[in-house]
Amino acid sequence: MSYPSFVRINEEGPREGFQADPRFIETDKKLELIEALSQTGIKHIVVTSFANPERVPSVGDAEEVVARMVRHPGVNYSAIWLNQRGLERAITTGRLDIEGTLGLTASEPFLQRNQRRTVEEDLVAAMQAATTYKHHGIPVRRLGIMAAFGCNFAGDIAPDHVVSLIASLLDIAEAAEVRAERVTLADTMGWANPLSVKRLVGAVQDRFPHLAIALHLHDTRGVGIANALAGLEMGVAEFDASIAGLGGCPFSGPTAAGNIATEELAFMCAEMGIETGIDLERLIAAARLAEEIFGRPLPGTLSRSGTLAARRAALKG
Amino acid sequence: MSYPSFVRINEEGPREGFQADPRFIETDKKLELIEALSQTGIKHIVVTSFANPERVPSVGDAEEVVARMVRHPGVNYSAIWLNQRGLERAITTGRLDIEGTLGLTASEPFLQRNQRRTVEEDLVAAMQAATTYKHHGIPVRRLGIMAAFGCNFAGDIAPDHVVSLIASLLDIAEAAEVRAERVTLADTMGWANPLSVKRLVGAVQDRFPHLAIALHLHDTRGVGIANALAGLEMGVAEFDASIAGLGGCPFSGPTAAGNIATEELAFMCAEMGIETGIDLERLIAAARLAEEIFGRPLPGTLSRSGTLAARRAALKG
Repeated sequence: MSYPSFVRINEEGPREGFQADPRFIETDKKLELIEALSQTGIKHIVVTSFANPERVPSVGDAEEVVARMVRHPGVNYSAIWLNQRGLERAITTGRLDIEGTLGLTASEPFLQRNQRRTVEEDLVAAMQAATTYKHHGIPVRRLGIMAAFGCNFAGDIAPDHVVSLIASLLDIAEAAEVRAERVTLADTMGWANPLSVKRLVGAVQDRFPHLAIALHLHDTRGVGIANALAGLEMGVAEFDASIAGLGGCPFSGPTAAGNIATEELAFMCAEMGIETGIDLERLIAAARLAEEIFGRPLPGTLSRSGTLAARRAALKG
Repeated sequence: MSYPSFVRINEEGPREGFQADPRFIETDKKLELIEALSQTGIKHIVVTSFANPERVPSVGDAEEVVARMVRHPGVNYSAIWLNQRGLERAITTGRLDIEGTLGLTASEPFLQRNQRRTVEEDLVAAMQAATTYKHHGIPVRRLGIMAAFGCNFAGDIAPDHVVSLIASLLDIAEAAEVRAERVTLADTMGWANPLSVKRLVGAVQDRFPHLAIALHLHDTRGVGIANALAGLEMGVAEFDASIAGLGGCPFSGPTAAGNIATEELAFMCAEMGIETGIDLERLIAAARLAEEIFGRPLPGTLSRSGTLAARRAALKG
């Protein structure tokens, strides 16, 4: 086990945060946050969700957000969608870096609540998605397993089950002649702990040594950053995170928390000598902006305490 | 490196929290929290600080707290003091488990601000403390190094420096014929990261293989629990923590944050199969009480999200 030398952080804040908030945040404010994040050195920002506006009115302005955001060179701007209709809306904008993900959910009861699907329907949906991506010439580089560590409605999830789901996704990808390079293991409801992260990541590495692993961690019980450390120790070099810890899944129940805070993960990496390409001071400015926009203290603490790099510089100066 | 099978958690909440709060919290409320903590299975509670009441009025009721608290069998009740006068006040109560600590501070500028002492004066004070403890027949089992990882006024602290301070403390202990068994490394101002924890703990273990190590971690920048994990991975089996993440050092500056939250550390240990002897549900009840007493949301999140053990039980039932 050795730490990666570079960690890629995918910013989920605009999508996770605005989607989860019960209020509708003004489009101008959303654009302001996306702009601030675009200036941090982050290379990937998930800007919105093409969900059903009637079911998730908070992202009813998805098209307007994408039409008006300023695209910075070198930054990848993506969005999520849950079905064919959402994908078509995303494509129609003409302003997104559209990349397909083939996903399955490791818990059947969660699948039923979140997407109103059975396991069989989830597999069929993944096959249809693969075909659709191929038809549109959309690259598919990523697989995803939701609720990979545990579920509020199903309990703990066995690593073997996750491994078998990944095998199914690879079969689906192969049948559709798409080439997946990486898999995101999502702790959707905050069930992971450092040992379970090491166990699941280890099991996936053993079975699929050529597949890169990314972690999507929610900080539901205060151990999200420790779970990220466990991932780093297994060589995981890609994480989803949300500025200031924004987010929470609106279908996971009232206790759903946001992702690990982007600025805390980037800070930990920086202090450990792991490159992220991110300017921490600009990231903190974006975290402060997020707190201003949401009008309440958010989980991330670094915007209050400041970086150690700034303190070191002040002591030298 | 292997995880310890049992972790001892020292509860610092009443001392850290009440001391750091700018308001005076009613004595009855303090007693209520100490009582709730006494029922959790925690074996060590630091109940107050015998500081100068004029300088730290928030703990001006130290004697009354100690006189009125209910001592539960098997629980060790201690307090802190910064000088001979404070120690005498603690002894006079007749109701505390008085144990001496020989401490030094790794940063001279912090020492000057926090205790108004030079390095030489700090050494002399430790010698005098050793003599005093011996004179009163007070056992000294613990050494302590404050600001062991870094300091807002001195920057990063080298592990070699900490090792040399521990060597000095062991010399002082030997000269006074007291026998120290353990050393607490305190990240007083939130400068530690998982790598620096591993480096310093490793350096202390290498040099003093018979000395047990405890970690006192502040969660100033969101990585406190990851630092605790790094400690666990080095075999550290004792941690200070504060219920709900209460605390902060009033002399460390406006950005000082509390300790890692007791319930999050105990939860992480439980999920990793590490025993703590603590009832998590009772601990959460104490965290909720702390939030009620302080009248604001505290950093610990587990009291909002609940334990996984409770969810597993509900799914089975």
